[in-house]
Amino acid sequence: MAISIAHLGPAGTYAETAALASVQWLIQGGQDAILCPYPSIAQTLTAAAEQKVQYAVVPVENSIEGSVTMTLDNLWQLDNLRIQRALVMPISHALLSHAERLEKIRTVYSHPQALAQCQKWLDQFLPTAQLIAANSTTEALQHLGDDRTIAAISSQRAAQLYNLPILASPINDYPDNCTRFLVLSLEPSPGGTHTSIAFGMSANQPGMLVKPLQVFAQRNINLTRIESRPTRRTPGTYHFFLDLQADVREFPIQSALEELTHYTETLKIFGSYDIVTID
Amino acid sequence: MAISIAHLGPAGTYAETAALASVQWLIQGGQDAILCPYPSIAQTLTAAAEQKVQYAVVPVENSIEGSVTMTLDNLWQLDNLRIQRALVMPISHALLSHAERLEKIRTVYSHPQALAQCQKWLDQFLPTAQLIAANSTTEALQHLGDDRTIAAISSQRAAQLYNLPILASPINDYPDNCTRFLVLSLEPSPGGTHTSIAFGMSANQPGMLVKPLQVFAQRNINLTRIESRPTRRTPGTYHFFLDLQADVREFPIQSALEELTHYTETLKIFGSYDIVTID
Repeated sequence: MAISIAHLGPAGTYAETAALASVQWLIQGGQDAILCPYPSIAQTLTAAAEQKVQYAVVPVENSIEGSVTMTLDNLWQLDNLRIQRALVMPISHALLSHAERLEKIRTVYSHPQALAQCQKWLDQFLPTAQLIAANSTTEALQHLGDDRTIAAISSQRAAQLYNLPILASPINDYPDNCTRFLVLSLEPSPGGTHTSIAFGMSANQPGMLVKPLQVFAQRNINLTRIESRPTRRTPGTYHFFLDLQADVREFPIQSALEELTHYTETLKIFGSYDIVTID
Repeated sequence: MAISIAHLGPAGTYAETAALASVQWLIQGGQDAILCPYPSIAQTLTAAAEQKVQYAVVPVENSIEGSVTMTLDNLWQLDNLRIQRALVMPISHALLSHAERLEKIRTVYSHPQALAQCQKWLDQFLPTAQLIAANSTTEALQHLGDDRTIAAISSQRAAQLYNLPILASPINDYPDNCTRFLVLSLEPSPGGTHTSIAFGMSANQPGMLVKPLQVFAQRNINLTRIESRPTRRTPGTYHFFLDLQADVREFPIQSALEELTHYTETLKIFGSYDIVTID
């Protein structure tokens, strides 16, 4: 039986490349894999949460622009998905257009994260161009048509796939641009070097973050990342997303998570998994 | 002599309203205040850092969309500005357009934060409209012209100021939408209930966040907020922005900050100040 993997589409997105790279660990024996493009990160995650597909691959953090807040906010709401693996993938953006010269371009379409990652380049070379948000880097390509005043920021792979000319590449402001993707499903997570959790606390509790962070500090469990997101209920209250260097199958973290429930209102454990770097 | 206050412009932005509200604490005696609109948050902060103006008023966090990452990244780089005061201001967005009906609208301009704060409303009422990023909510209004297929998301105050019709209001997805602004200058901060700091650590240091957070936990200093931003140098390394419930003029925090320098590579103290809620 084939396995199905949801990702942000259409074909040619960085998320699709990440999904393709994850196939090798997800298939067993002679299985096939079917890639299922969805128009948004929210719909990609919901597809896996509602068992329309077995896996979802979504970006969670970029090394330049930071968290993909859409992914964090949706993970918090869905809360039944577990992380199977994380992938770190280098990102190199290209400017695709039928224009012969940069001077002709009046409008640039792309995903907001891609626009932000090329902000300095756009300021320098296309300072007067309108920047228009698309749902994905490849959805942006649908706006090109035959119009020589329009450009889109997408991957070199997308240029090949859709046979579109590259006018400039690479155009990302920082060469060390990479994105971390998560592979999620309803299955229990397999265990590994990192554990991701999130928690909420009752509003205005004195001491707020001190106690939860002490729980890990006392056990010498390393936090590799902490991110806060507004609860959207009461201003000044947050959900905290933590990445820990620990395996949830081991005792120290089990005891830490047990103690953590004393201080948190809601605790979500997204699982333990390995991080893999792909080229 | 008049005091000068930079803010994101043109006139009519939420930042201008915050700047106007801050005038009453900034002027002394019979002083006048001159508001100086700038086209970006970066230029607003730089104007104060380079003494072209005395004060800068910038948004730092919205209760729905989270951090204004542009402000955090620029504060880190400039590092000579000190916080004089924080203002929490309710935000209510309106849809401004010459269109008679929503069905006519094909394009919506606004600041990316405003577009994000009205995302559900836009998905429901204008699902096919193109969303275009503007530098500010009032810069968005310049695109309206006489075109009845264009709308902009801005404040009710901007609608009055520029005599533009309101087609729908309020359109923000959450009624409890508020934004925290910072008033910054080169002067030492005055002291107050909250202290903002930021620090960087050398890459891959084991224990990473544990030690810095223990410094505050051991002294029962409450963290009201923690935010990480990528360093943009090495993937997986961050600057951390912390808000503490403490006054830097008091002993516990002075000793905490002194100890903190043992664990951090760079430590920036943006000052202690009071938070004021305005209507």
